[in-house]
Amino acid sequence: MTEAAAYWDITKERMPREEREQNTLTALQSTLHHVYDNLPFYRRHYDAHGFHPDRVETLQDFTERVPVITKQMLRDDQEENPPFGSYVGVGPEDLVRVHGSSGTSGKPTLYAFSAKDWAYTTEVMAQGLYTCGVRPGDRVQLSTVFSLFMGGWGALLGTERIGATAFPLGSGETERQLELMHRIGSTVLICTPTYALHMLETAAVLGYDAAASPLRLGIFIGEPGAAIPGTRSRLESGWGVQVRDMATTSEMTPWATNAECELGVGVHVMQDEVWTEVVDKDDYGKLAPDGESGALIYTHLRRDSQPMIRFLSGDESRMTYEPCDCGRTYPRLPDGVYGRLDDMLLIRGANIYPSQVQRSLLEVPGTGVEFLIVMTREGSMDEATVRVERDPTIEVSDPAAFNTELAQRVQRKLKNDTSVTFKIEILPPETLERAISKAKRVDDQRPKYRPV
Amino acid sequence: MTEAAAYWDITKERMPREEREQNTLTALQSTLHHVYDNLPFYRRHYDAHGFHPDRVETLQDFTERVPVITKQMLRDDQEENPPFGSYVGVGPEDLVRVHGSSGTSGKPTLYAFSAKDWAYTTEVMAQGLYTCGVRPGDRVQLSTVFSLFMGGWGALLGTERIGATAFPLGSGETERQLELMHRIGSTVLICTPTYALHMLETAAVLGYDAAASPLRLGIFIGEPGAAIPGTRSRLESGWGVQVRDMATTSEMTPWATNAECELGVGVHVMQDEVWTEVVDKDDYGKLAPDGESGALIYTHLRRDSQPMIRFLSGDESRMTYEPCDCGRTYPRLPDGVYGRLDDMLLIRGANIYPSQVQRSLLEVPGTGVEFLIVMTREGSMDEATVRVERDPTIEVSDPAAFNTELAQRVQRKLKNDTSVTFKIEILPPETLERAISKAKRVDDQRPKYRPV
Repeated sequence: MTEAAAYWDITKERMPREEREQNTLTALQSTLHHVYDNLPFYRRHYDAHGFHPDRVETLQDFTERVPVITKQMLRDDQEENPPFGSYVGVGPEDLVRVHGSSGTSGKPTLYAFSAKDWAYTTEVMAQGLYTCGVRPGDRVQLSTVFSLFMGGWGALLGTERIGATAFPLGSGETERQLELMHRIGSTVLICTPTYALHMLETAAVLGYDAAASPLRLGIFIGEPGAAIPGTRSRLESGWGVQVRDMATTSEMTPWATNAECELGVGVHVMQDEVWTEVVDKDDYGKLAPDGESGALIYTHLRRDSQPMIRFLSGDESRMTYEPCDCGRTYPRLPDGVYGRLDDMLLIRGANIYPSQVQRSLLEVPGTGVEFLIVMTREGSMDEATVRVERDPTIEVSDPAAFNTELAQRVQRKLKNDTSVTFKIEILPPETLERAISKAKRVDDQRPKYRPV
Repeated sequence: MTEAAAYWDITKERMPREEREQNTLTALQSTLHHVYDNLPFYRRHYDAHGFHPDRVETLQDFTERVPVITKQMLRDDQEENPPFGSYVGVGPEDLVRVHGSSGTSGKPTLYAFSAKDWAYTTEVMAQGLYTCGVRPGDRVQLSTVFSLFMGGWGALLGTERIGATAFPLGSGETERQLELMHRIGSTVLICTPTYALHMLETAAVLGYDAAASPLRLGIFIGEPGAAIPGTRSRLESGWGVQVRDMATTSEMTPWATNAECELGVGVHVMQDEVWTEVVDKDDYGKLAPDGESGALIYTHLRRDSQPMIRFLSGDESRMTYEPCDCGRTYPRLPDGVYGRLDDMLLIRGANIYPSQVQRSLLEVPGTGVEFLIVMTREGSMDEATVRVERDPTIEVSDPAAFNTELAQRVQRKLKNDTSVTFKIEILPPETLERAISKAKRVDDQRPKYRPV
């Protein structure tokens, strides 16, 4: 193997930091002018904060002066400027693809892609998967959902671009997935860590020797897990594979800009594709010191449609420029993405906010206002239970029958709104503890997603 | 609009029949030699039947002399030559994509595609969807499953190739599908007719005026329906759309070689892509007269990977060369594909054979050997119930609890093996009627899929 074969693009991946950052600064300046001149969403936001693109002359200026944007701002703007918001940047006729968020804080936020950006996504996803070790000749089993969400689609694009054999199966029907994995000889598995653990349990029940599977590589996306030591070693030994992490955020498609190399020491951050900052949790204008925990902020350097400029992901991580022996000059997130800075829950790969559960419950007649989400882990699967009180104003003659029927309606509604199947417990009125100030909406009894 | 804009490829689509058939004959001869020389599956089959490619000098020779192949032969060959059979035609490193059948007669049959064939599929799917009326600028909501099966993937390829906006949602979460359809302004819906009818019912419950939806066109695939007058008019008036049919068979990917033009008088058959014959049901070497019912036989004219030569689909149809006012010189299936010549059931788009249900039941301890599949229709959804006897050798102290638990195991097993959720009824031993010769395995109480 030549040295170059270890990289998707050796020149790009081994470029000296200073040279890359000079290019990045130029790209950032041009992007800032573009969005300020052409996208009303950014113009309004920057004007309101007294910011002008001319004020960015260094990368430090960028961090110190450019106001962040949030998911809530995107949602509000799409509400006012349907369907795609006032930050699209291309005409409706130029859109080749529409996807969306899991919509768990209300209606899904829509993602729109131009042909150019879809091709860009393809190229970057390929670099990310190649960094993780996918090669032509691999058979890549994509056990990821293919629907509104971006997760599986990006991985499929990258697999196709590399020229490996793509085997997109969706998620579920685990017994069949295992049979097919052995029959066609899948060499790479891509899915959430949770689903990979669930497959291991199913394999054990069915008598498959998962550690003797044809897989050589597992790439885990959509939630933390591959970066958590205990989970990582279970995936490694259970499947007998190399484990690689990708720290994904669908707003930032292409999301494989955070991908782990063959040394397995945390995800590399492609600073030439998405400029990634780890900043002080209480001051988004201040970078966290090298290696110290902070808030992740992302900026697209070359997306035409819906470019994200200083998008505050809500994720927590730490970043270091300590060199990696793989030779890439990108910085790393040595522990991946390991925390949330808001009350978002990650349940089987879906982003769930308590506020959305509340909104859904309010639309189900018969429920009261008090509820609690209880998170537990049974085996390797997260279990989410919603405990909700009955509406105290309804007279109920047969509580058992009433509760059973109400629970089914609540379950259906939450499944439709969040894509997650919750367990439902209906409680009599006045059962849950009342909070004095902020209501407690989540009781998370799962082991923490934290580096140890 | 220029005349050419009405066609994907005016030269190809309006080519005089004689000229096209001369090209077809040349392609068939070359294909026959290729498969005989290179693919052991065909070599063995043709040798066993004393057939040699040199014997085909006319299209009539092709019909009279080339032995047909069946699904069972493909399954057997894949069993003997795993994973893709001895009819692949390209090396493993040339495969870019793997999919499969619904596997309802046992394990899924695997479909393997070379890069060239995937590009070919894209081009032909585009011609098919363009024939149905999809244009650049359309927003195409793909409410089709994206998994092992080919259905949604082919439609996605064609949509992308045309340059319309693809909005691939998968199947299910109907309330969200309706909300998104209105929010993004989908102009085209692609799904099974059954799911489109189910969406109509859900829309009515939720208070959506489906007939005032942004849709202008509905393309229905995966099962008969769009060609059945009653169903067609319900889809047309319910959604307020033009209804177009595609008669699909996944072995014959690209399957959009049967697609309906703007005049809506049955699917056109792209005889320059897949050579399609309607033959005597009892003599596959004899064409059915123009317009008369017979068995559909398909032949790929330019697939490298897994070419199908005289594939007996098991479907029934009639074909006519009566000219269509659209100007295309292709023949048509005026009533689409309306029947089955074997005991295959179509349940919500999945192909189900009673033999597979039997095979699955045999693997669930506690069940007896007798069973019956009862097909009913509730509203617009097919309902499939499996009535199965308990194993008479097991002593059961609490039959109610035993049956409930057994029913759940049977349901899970069938769902895994066939992707269909069956209703399950567990019966005491010796309940079902015993057949004297061939057991009755299906009680189909649904209205017939037949032209009226």
